[in-house]
Amino acid sequence: MSASTGLAAPAPGGVRQIAPMRAAVLRGIGDVVVEERSVPEAGPGQVVVRVASVGVCGSDTHYYEHGRIGRFVVESPLVLGHEASGEVAALGPGVTSPVVGQRVSVEPGIPDLTCAQCLAGRYNLCPGMRFFATPPVDGAFAEYVVVHAAFAHPVPDTVSDDAAALLEPLSVGIWACRKGRVGPGSRVLITGAGPIGLVSLQAALAFGATEVVVSDVNPARLALARELGATETVDVRTADLADLPRPPEVLLECSGHPAATGDAIRALGPAARAVLVGMGGDELRLPLSVVQERELEVTGTFRYAGTWPTAIALVAAGRIDLDRLVTGTYRLDQAADALVAGRRDPQSVKVVVHPQT
Amino acid sequence: MSASTGLAAPAPGGVRQIAPMRAAVLRGIGDVVVEERSVPEAGPGQVVVRVASVGVCGSDTHYYEHGRIGRFVVESPLVLGHEASGEVAALGPGVTSPVVGQRVSVEPGIPDLTCAQCLAGRYNLCPGMRFFATPPVDGAFAEYVVVHAAFAHPVPDTVSDDAAALLEPLSVGIWACRKGRVGPGSRVLITGAGPIGLVSLQAALAFGATEVVVSDVNPARLALARELGATETVDVRTADLADLPRPPEVLLECSGHPAATGDAIRALGPAARAVLVGMGGDELRLPLSVVQERELEVTGTFRYAGTWPTAIALVAAGRIDLDRLVTGTYRLDQAADALVAGRRDPQSVKVVVHPQT
Amino acid sequence: MSASTGLAAPAPGGVRQIAPMRAAVLRGIGDVVVEERSVPEAGPGQVVVRVASVGVCGSDTHYYEHGRIGRFVVESPLVLGHEASGEVAALGPGVTSPVVGQRVSVEPGIPDLTCAQCLAGRYNLCPGMRFFATPPVDGAFAEYVVVHAAFAHPVPDTVSDDAAALLEPLSVGIWACRKGRVGPGSRVLITGAGPIGLVSLQAALAFGATEVVVSDVNPARLALARELGATETVDVRTADLADLPRPPEVLLECSGHPAATGDAIRALGPAARAVLVGMGGDELRLPLSVVQERELEVTGTFRYAGTWPTAIALVAAGRIDLDRLVTGTYRLDQAADALVAGRRDPQSVKVVVHPQT
Amino acid sequence: MSASTGLAAPAPGGVRQIAPMRAAVLRGIGDVVVEERSVPEAGPGQVVVRVASVGVCGSDTHYYEHGRIGRFVVESPLVLGHEASGEVAALGPGVTSPVVGQRVSVEPGIPDLTCAQCLAGRYNLCPGMRFFATPPVDGAFAEYVVVHAAFAHPVPDTVSDDAAALLEPLSVGIWACRKGRVGPGSRVLITGAGPIGLVSLQAALAFGATEVVVSDVNPARLALARELGATETVDVRTADLADLPRPPEVLLECSGHPAATGDAIRALGPAARAVLVGMGGDELRLPLSVVQERELEVTGTFRYAGTWPTAIALVAAGRIDLDRLVTGTYRLDQAADALVAGRRDPQSVKVVVHPQT
Repeated sequence: MSASTGLAAPAPGGVRQIAPMRAAVLRGIGDVVVEERSVPEAGPGQVVVRVASVGVCGSDTHYYEHGRIGRFVVESPLVLGHEASGEVAALGPGVTSPVVGQRVSVEPGIPDLTCAQCLAGRYNLCPGMRFFATPPVDGAFAEYVVVHAAFAHPVPDTVSDDAAALLEPLSVGIWACRKGRVGPGSRVLITGAGPIGLVSLQAALAFGATEVVVSDVNPARLALARELGATETVDVRTADLADLPRPPEVLLECSGHPAATGDAIRALGPAARAVLVGMGGDELRLPLSVVQERELEVTGTFRYAGTWPTAIALVAAGRIDLDRLVTGTYRLDQAADALVAGRRDPQSVKVVVHPQT
Repeated sequence: MSASTGLAAPAPGGVRQIAPMRAAVLRGIGDVVVEERSVPEAGPGQVVVRVASVGVCGSDTHYYEHGRIGRFVVESPLVLGHEASGEVAALGPGVTSPVVGQRVSVEPGIPDLTCAQCLAGRYNLCPGMRFFATPPVDGAFAEYVVVHAAFAHPVPDTVSDDAAALLEPLSVGIWACRKGRVGPGSRVLITGAGPIGLVSLQAALAFGATEVVVSDVNPARLALARELGATETVDVRTADLADLPRPPEVLLECSGHPAATGDAIRALGPAARAVLVGMGGDELRLPLSVVQERELEVTGTFRYAGTWPTAIALVAAGRIDLDRLVTGTYRLDQAADALVAGRRDPQSVKVVVHPQT
Repeated sequence: MSASTGLAAPAPGGVRQIAPMRAAVLRGIGDVVVEERSVPEAGPGQVVVRVASVGVCGSDTHYYEHGRIGRFVVESPLVLGHEASGEVAALGPGVTSPVVGQRVSVEPGIPDLTCAQCLAGRYNLCPGMRFFATPPVDGAFAEYVVVHAAFAHPVPDTVSDDAAALLEPLSVGIWACRKGRVGPGSRVLITGAGPIGLVSLQAALAFGATEVVVSDVNPARLALARELGATETVDVRTADLADLPRPPEVLLECSGHPAATGDAIRALGPAARAVLVGMGGDELRLPLSVVQERELEVTGTFRYAGTWPTAIALVAAGRIDLDRLVTGTYRLDQAADALVAGRRDPQSVKVVVHPQT
Repeated sequence: MSASTGLAAPAPGGVRQIAPMRAAVLRGIGDVVVEERSVPEAGPGQVVVRVASVGVCGSDTHYYEHGRIGRFVVESPLVLGHEASGEVAALGPGVTSPVVGQRVSVEPGIPDLTCAQCLAGRYNLCPGMRFFATPPVDGAFAEYVVVHAAFAHPVPDTVSDDAAALLEPLSVGIWACRKGRVGPGSRVLITGAGPIGLVSLQAALAFGATEVVVSDVNPARLALARELGATETVDVRTADLADLPRPPEVLLECSGHPAATGDAIRALGPAARAVLVGMGGDELRLPLSVVQERELEVTGTFRYAGTWPTAIALVAAGRIDLDRLVTGTYRLDQAADALVAGRRDPQSVKVVVHPQT
């Protein structure tokens, strides 16, 4: 066994000795424990990543508290976590890049690469996608994970482990900005100042937006939004989106409250785009004549495709600060605490788990 | 007075003698009468068109029956009709093209040309648009109308007067196909086989679509859809859009029944576009998770911009047959009958008024 | 050995008996002979196709006559041919679709699927692409070929074997039309009426173009262009592209004569697109001020990506007739004759080889 | 006469008394003198602007030194200058916005607004465009100019007069970035570090580009490029663009040396865009196989359309610093000196004329 990586070295006769590792496993609603598992092996085209940091996403918390998200049901023990960074620990057959020791950010899914969606560059819509921490695929609350080499994105040393992990939620924000065609001089409204709203804010500014209004009901989060560059914030408990001085050209809906989305859509100007990022509720009551008379475009986002190079470039260039979002750090054996931190503390924004600790 | 055009010739001393013309005027709900009015004069950049044919649109009928459409209310006598063709009868100051005698199709609105929307090529969204037969702007149920020279589009002799008038609804269909990015090999679902559904069908085929499914509850209209090239028709009284063999890539919603639109949206494939053309109802209940997981784009259309050159080219090339849609022809003094023909006869598709008769 | 497919059946003990097949092999300049080779085996994700028809492309002829195309040099025996159709004869591990017996058109390359270009949907620009009949990768002048299952595209029975083979050159035309943004009502100029010019013509019409001017120096080819729908043809030996009545919006340059391309570019209208499909010559003398003042877009094409579904849909719908282009059919042992047919006979358009004969 | 504006007040009986103003007039090659002219009157839809600052463009210098640019020949006395800012001094009939006293940046052209190009949003390609300082249309080296109200763009007080004038060259840079689809994370190569290269640099950074390489032969300009945010500079007298570590995705050619452009194009990566902004030379020798194999898009720019809102937003937000580019300020009677300042001093970047001084 290699002391430096914890990985099994080939034993004589081609039999590999399996190394153990720790993983935080969701065994039932509200039940996460650290178990010992085998370090996964890299198949052809894959690499093993020694995980340094994993962000906790609202979906992780939702699986922990409810055991399901829509049609995805946790039916057997599941490792949560899909916002991960680390270091390449071993290479599968045929892999030459990245090299062992390379620090990487993990893009946490692998599409089938050959379906019509993949070949068209929309691999996020691949029906054969296998995605971290989505039943029955395990995630990254573990010491090691295996990913396709092309989805282990090298990061420069100026990007911290936590920031490298948070390139995943940043990708959601970048994807939202692409869908909304945010550009230089854009006027953007972001509803919801949770982690996704805040990375979308930073992404919008990095895309060149010069007016970014952020709305929420949590004053602490609105204050952070201002600190991160929001040009205006709206506390929707006391103010009305209809009173914005100039109609936004783009709405990035990150609150997951469809009931309030109608107001935001009505605030938009002609030819505006409404991007529905937040999940929650089955139906959105769309104001039909507004959508028609202004020719609004309403679209939803599902993960992302091709965002990592952009995310890395922006963070490495200092255009976006992900470390600022981290409000808590947890050991692997504190994963259950990490999963509920956001629920318990209104000051919490984003917490991370460091599986090697 | 010029015998050939009915227009006033300049009298000595620069005073013009005003010629009379007939117009069908909506004086109240269900009250349309032919009145004598002055032939309008062309201002700078404008032309007078001697109207040959005017199609009756559902919006005309709606104004006739209800006196309003949404926020547009008929508060004083109004000439209806906005689907018009004719012949240039006189030129305003500065106009050199089109020439007197040129047969033209009328694009029935004039934007302000200098607002942000106009300068961006989206003149249909111009807040200063003055549009035919939209209170308080008069329409084309009259012997003569005035339009901006650039919006009087020359048509070749192979395009009939009726077809030239129906370039307006065809423009709605072309615009819908552009918004939906219909292209060669597209699979399209059109809900509603009224005039707009049928021109959208023909437009989709001309854009290269190879599968066009049309749904309606009227067997006569579905039969006409098949005759015009629909590859499949669905009578939604007895069949279900969820049973389509392959998910459409584009939905052109032309029925104006938002209650049924949810089913159509659920039938779409990944990355599909849903274009809401039909008007009716205030809210559309949008299936949020479907829009998100498939990254559907939902948009509405409001009139059109830059469609006439395309419409003329397609009709002149024989790719689209508008004359086939005409199921009735009326004199100007029969305008009231024309306005209700569609309501009274399920076989009726599109009726036209010939104001010179 | 299976009598019906010629493929090796698994022998006891896991040893496969290798079946022989015939292939036409380029051994040197002007030297093509039929050799016996082993039927290739399908690896994971691949299928074996029993080849029915293979079109002869100008690049095949060029390799035959010169032994190289630019930086691609034939350094060892090479099987030519990359326009192929056939029937699935065997499936590699993991393949469930298409099934054995399915008639397919072969997309003759396999990209690495995971590079930045592939993940962006531009797999034609993949630096790791392995492409049929491009040294050192063998092509399809053989009884059997192996392709990735996703690149063996099922065709309906209404598409002949020859047409299924010619979906490859049609893809070049479709790709050119996409790059040039040909659409309904477009005015297109196609320079060169060889096979690529003629499929581009048909593709442009299927994309909705209503004016398609084709230029060449070969009257027989111009006559065929008219038969296939060109709205005007120009014999550039005696007429000048500068005299076109209306400036085209799109140029599809299919002649490979860069010296003449400047004239074609100068004939374009504002905001037009010039797509350089034809290969030949190292430099194009671009009229700089014309490109700037009209903001022309000049681009080249390199193969295609995602064109087969469109190509199949258009041919199956009868919008495009590929069989009309076939002017000669050859047995495998006549491959050398097939390779020079186009050079020898000015009436020749496209010849095909039937490897099973 | 109004003391504050110098404009004629209506005299009794409707006769306006014409106020004089000073203008610097090009009477022949190398011959610019200040003359007294009448203050122009605003027609319908127009405003009179009291000019505060006018930048000197290379085209002004070219007219001064050669009397022509391509097909545009100075055949009668001409006022140069098309980069202007000022304050609204009077309104023409029908104008309500901007108001008198409003500080504005002048967009120095007025298209016909109704041609096909204008209606499509490409008003820069309008064949009827009347553009400042382009024979025979006078420019802004004068105390007052008349512009269309929609082309007198209000600027906030945080934007200086000089910066407001330089929104015009910035618009060229913004337009180049749009054409090149510069976006967040883009890798951009800018050849030429003159004023257009430097505004393109700032625009590219504001569009989100994270690698911007600038090349020139003038070390002072390269130093300024680095100061303004270039991530790398290349002195092409001693270094080679072929040695760039990573291939750019966008080339903004701002040098006007087509001989060197081939090298820059060869340095680009797959699917890259080459935007030809710099003027000079009749032909560009395009490396054909490079354009084809990498599917490069090559396009030229001609002025701009719809850029002022973006330019104002970016400068007002502090994303772009135009004042930093100003290396000299001249009185109106020094216009001749201003016109040659750039030629005489290699440290000169952009000089401005203040016509009120």
